[in-house]
Amino acid sequence: MPTNQRIVLASRPKGLPTAQNFRLEEVSIPAAPEGGFVVRNHWLSLDPYMRGRMDAAKSYAKSVDIGAVMEGGTVGEVIASRHEKFNVGDFVTGRFGWQHYSASDGTSATKVDATAAPLSAYLGVLGMPGVTAWIGLLDIGQPKAGETVVVSAASGAVGGVVGQIAKIHGARTVGIAGGKEKCDYIVKELGFDACIDHKSDDLYEALEAACPKGIDVYFENVGGRIMDTVLALMNPFSRMPVCGLVSQYNAATSDDVYGLKNIRSVLTNRIKMQGFIVSDRMELWRPARADLTKWLADGKLRYRESVVAGLDAAPEALIGLLQGRNFGKQLVKLI
Amino acid sequence: MPTNQRIVLASRPKGLPTAQNFRLEEVSIPAAPEGGFVVRNHWLSLDPYMRGRMDAAKSYAKSVDIGAVMEGGTVGEVIASRHEKFNVGDFVTGRFGWQHYSASDGTSATKVDATAAPLSAYLGVLGMPGVTAWIGLLDIGQPKAGETVVVSAASGAVGGVVGQIAKIHGARTVGIAGGKEKCDYIVKELGFDACIDHKSDDLYEALEAACPKGIDVYFENVGGRIMDTVLALMNPFSRMPVCGLVSQYNAATSDDVYGLKNIRSVLTNRIKMQGFIVSDRMELWRPARADLTKWLADGKLRYRESVVAGLDAAPEALIGLLQGRNFGKQLVKLI
Repeated sequence: MPTNQRIVLASRPKGLPTAQNFRLEEVSIPAAPEGGFVVRNHWLSLDPYMRGRMDAAKSYAKSVDIGAVMEGGTVGEVIASRHEKFNVGDFVTGRFGWQHYSASDGTSATKVDATAAPLSAYLGVLGMPGVTAWIGLLDIGQPKAGETVVVSAASGAVGGVVGQIAKIHGARTVGIAGGKEKCDYIVKELGFDACIDHKSDDLYEALEAACPKGIDVYFENVGGRIMDTVLALMNPFSRMPVCGLVSQYNAATSDDVYGLKNIRSVLTNRIKMQGFIVSDRMELWRPARADLTKWLADGKLRYRESVVAGLDAAPEALIGLLQGRNFGKQLVKLI
Repeated sequence: MPTNQRIVLASRPKGLPTAQNFRLEEVSIPAAPEGGFVVRNHWLSLDPYMRGRMDAAKSYAKSVDIGAVMEGGTVGEVIASRHEKFNVGDFVTGRFGWQHYSASDGTSATKVDATAAPLSAYLGVLGMPGVTAWIGLLDIGQPKAGETVVVSAASGAVGGVVGQIAKIHGARTVGIAGGKEKCDYIVKELGFDACIDHKSDDLYEALEAACPKGIDVYFENVGGRIMDTVLALMNPFSRMPVCGLVSQYNAATSDDVYGLKNIRSVLTNRIKMQGFIVSDRMELWRPARADLTKWLADGKLRYRESVVAGLDAAPEALIGLLQGRNFGKQLVKLI
């Protein structure tokens, strides 16, 4: 008899998570609840925000409790249903957690068209990362044609889409990423105008050379030294959507947190810096997905996936993601 | 024969300015230029932004050149005119500099009603500081009734108005200022709900106690440790108009700049942080002044002035202002 495997939070990490913070459990497959359904997950998405959920500290969302299933978005197929809108055979995406089988009341679930795009795209370019890129760049960043847009973690699931949307809107687009291989991909595959390796010693000079007219929009994914450097190059009336600060998520104590020196640029350049979370703006998902689906069909959105096979590989893959070891959207193939 | 005295920038300061950075000059009184006028200044305003003008470094406005008259707002009387709109005997306010007599083409000049309020009020509550408070709080901060507004440098020319406007809009209003005397004034005279002495060791605890529902709007005048502490107490979807960072203006090197640790709150709480300069928003001066004039007439706006007598006292008074030694709006009485 098949069983359900799931990964729960075993303990809270100090600094970078380790394998010991996770525990694989084997339980029975849930039955469809009254008014709900059961989904068999095909793909699990791994994302930087998951690090925040592992802490007890206040974040924008509730922590995962010790012993609870790790949170995560998946895409899969409905295998049993007592829900009036979701039928057996439907493909759905939702916040179904790190497990093979999930019971749901449908709250976070969205049906997807498995014939329009590969299923995994609904966790990346057509899913939360793509919608995040769209909302942060277009609703907060508002780039105009001819302006310069810089995005960090530019080969990642969000950053890659940000830069391509910026190009579609006629902006000069500069990525920041770790290493030559990622930078080559960003320029040659994704079509950015330039890419800066943040591991280089002369980050400021390289960025200044790549942005001869300064920076009008900075889409922030990483924080720390990179944020500080970019601040010094921001233009008057520039915008900084703050989507993530992944370089700071593993700081175990305040001493490990980077001390930002260039905040004065916010005043002198009248910068608008604004944090956002994609789930606050549910009303924008429909227009965002419509644009993203069209751009993907038109061949204007390229993406890359890092895939590991099997649920038991998820913890190591998340740890790698938090260190920038992934290349593109990080996924776990469950089937 | 009377002469014109003026103060010019003698050299650029490193860190806190000293008297040696200024030079008093005696020159002849200017004649009214074609299409312009000459104003005899009664009051000179001293403001924290002046520190930025003394640096060669890029700021939001052009530096004062070495040997040029120090920039500053004044209010005075037109004593000679070849301007079609400004007549001898008119009282005017404008950016006329640190001097007794100024020639102007009228660009920065506004006529004021010397019977409606004391002349000096046009440099404070009805002038640039009052309009700055109005724009930053109402246009960027947008406090709602029942929300909590915190303002730093709360006994200053801008901060005092911010808190009183916040009260008018029904917000709980908490000031931050240096010392018991200023805090007493802020609560007892200006009507704030509470005031925290930033010199206390337990700034975080004191602020937390004064803001039991967290902070919805933080009007930033000072930066540094106070900004960092406030960031940790900001609410979801809170707003931070950044008006000044006076604690950082005298940093001579990057080592002297405070390293901000709590920027992550911008992300987790989806804070909107926005720098602004009152001169960018000229279209808002008219509605701002209309409100301020009405509130002043209705007895809803109180203010205090620190006055020094004589132009030669201006440098020391500015140095004191940058260290928080003033109490209320800092003015130089020229006549």
